[in-house]
Amino acid sequence: MFNLIVVLFCAFNSIVFAFVHSPSLNDVLFNGGYDFIDLTHSFDKSTIYWPTMKNFTFTEKFKEISEDGSWYAANNFAAGEHGGTHLDAPYHFNLNGIRVGAIPLDKLIVPLIVADISSKVNDDPNFVLQKHHLDNMLNNNFGKPFYIVFKFGWSKFFDDRDRYLGIQANGTFNFPGLSEEVAEWITSSYKNIVGIGVDTASVDPGSSIDFPVHKIASAAGLFNTENVKLDVTVPDYGCTALILPMKIASGTGAPLRLVAICPKQVPTRF
Amino acid sequence: MFNLIVVLFCAFNSIVFAFVHSPSLNDVLFNGGYDFIDLTHSFDKSTIYWPTMKNFTFTEKFKEISEDGSWYAANNFAAGEHGGTHLDAPYHFNLNGIRVGAIPLDKLIVPLIVADISSKVNDDPNFVLQKHHLDNMLNNNFGKPFYIVFKFGWSKFFDDRDRYLGIQANGTFNFPGLSEEVAEWITSSYKNIVGIGVDTASVDPGSSIDFPVHKIASAAGLFNTENVKLDVTVPDYGCTALILPMKIASGTGAPLRLVAICPKQVPTRF
Repeated sequence: MFNLIVVLFCAFNSIVFAFVHSPSLNDVLFNGGYDFIDLTHSFDKSTIYWPTMKNFTFTEKFKEISEDGSWYAANNFAAGEHGGTHLDAPYHFNLNGIRVGAIPLDKLIVPLIVADISSKVNDDPNFVLQKHHLDNMLNNNFGKPFYIVFKFGWSKFFDDRDRYLGIQANGTFNFPGLSEEVAEWITSSYKNIVGIGVDTASVDPGSSIDFPVHKIASAAGLFNTENVKLDVTVPDYGCTALILPMKIASGTGAPLRLVAICPKQVPTRF
Repeated sequence: MFNLIVVLFCAFNSIVFAFVHSPSLNDVLFNGGYDFIDLTHSFDKSTIYWPTMKNFTFTEKFKEISEDGSWYAANNFAAGEHGGTHLDAPYHFNLNGIRVGAIPLDKLIVPLIVADISSKVNDDPNFVLQKHHLDNMLNNNFGKPFYIVFKFGWSKFFDDRDRYLGIQANGTFNFPGLSEEVAEWITSSYKNIVGIGVDTASVDPGSSIDFPVHKIASAAGLFNTENVKLDVTVPDYGCTALILPMKIASGTGAPLRLVAICPKQVPTRF
């Protein structure tokens, strides 16, 4: 009888211990177990913009040593909303969609899924993502809010504008993207998806002229993120995405700071 | 003897239980226990800029219904680096300081401390923060990395530019800020502070002409964040700050998306 009491008491203690020691967010985040990974290209004069948009320009306004010997520098800048690592608000392709400033934070801080199809793309600019390419990549996320980034393996070309956009002799583009079928499937099957990302200049393939993926995503209330910087290894599952655009109230889009917080990868030893 | 074994076994189990059930970041963040609080003013034509900087301007580039009936809208924009809710990089006032694009993420995702001195300010634009105003606000954070925001209670004036900046007849400004003494004390005593925030247009008081707080913070390698939107209740301790500026590579500053992730406040009942 005494033993039973001891066992029950200890079991109770186990549960209390677990509750009392339920760690805070700061405890979890800053215990050394997570990596902060920047998925954002820098903005400078070579940042790739959609050609109908204004390139990023930078005007040095002050750059001087004051009378007391101290330094002071400040700049102005200008840009289109749709260039570099940026977000498309639903309003970009949907008159009734929300604009950048209205996207709630609970859609901008969500679990991240990376669908790495770069080995299937194999640097082919004509690759168009079909449903069968995805195998079971999304199967265990049905019903949960998430943000998905498709890794085509295209970030390595970002410093070579012609290659990245696949600029043709007639000025058209050629780079990988999603098919209309995949966009329809994702938005109809995964009601809790909040946004789609790509490591290319557009969620539609470069050769698209009517942008069905943009239209389908916007109609479903999703945001897109384009020119995601994916030249680093990011786990397919288990990371958290911070998708924080410049808060341009009426923006159809905005420059984006995109960060993945991921469990540290333990180096594999053989 | 058997009892001792049972007790030791149960104690061991308690520890194993706690470890095995150590929750992931996504488990902690999305369990309903945290609020995501936006501390960012929107960017539009009325956003307050430092007067030597270009105001935020917005140019509608496309706003049209296409032949197939679909909507398309996109804009260009221009702005100074130093307006609205923004970050000052150390390089702003320190020739040897780093620029926006070089600030590492482990200084941009850190525990948040809010020093609420708004009741002492009591809407007085001549208030200058002295060390004695802070009582013991910072005492239990020595040695830990953190970002501190001083709440002067000034966000409520953000929609009234004259009142917010305290514009005088001669064009000078008058609003609360930190004293040189406080800047010296913080940067010399708290080696793990990464940045300072204020809910006014400048870390220096509006009447300052030589900006000692900017200079001291920049010299110490800290960033500043200004025009923080603090018209909401944020706990003094226990929140995590996401301090994510637009990644302007050579920026002396940049528009900032600032978010606090805070344990949900349990409503007090009497």
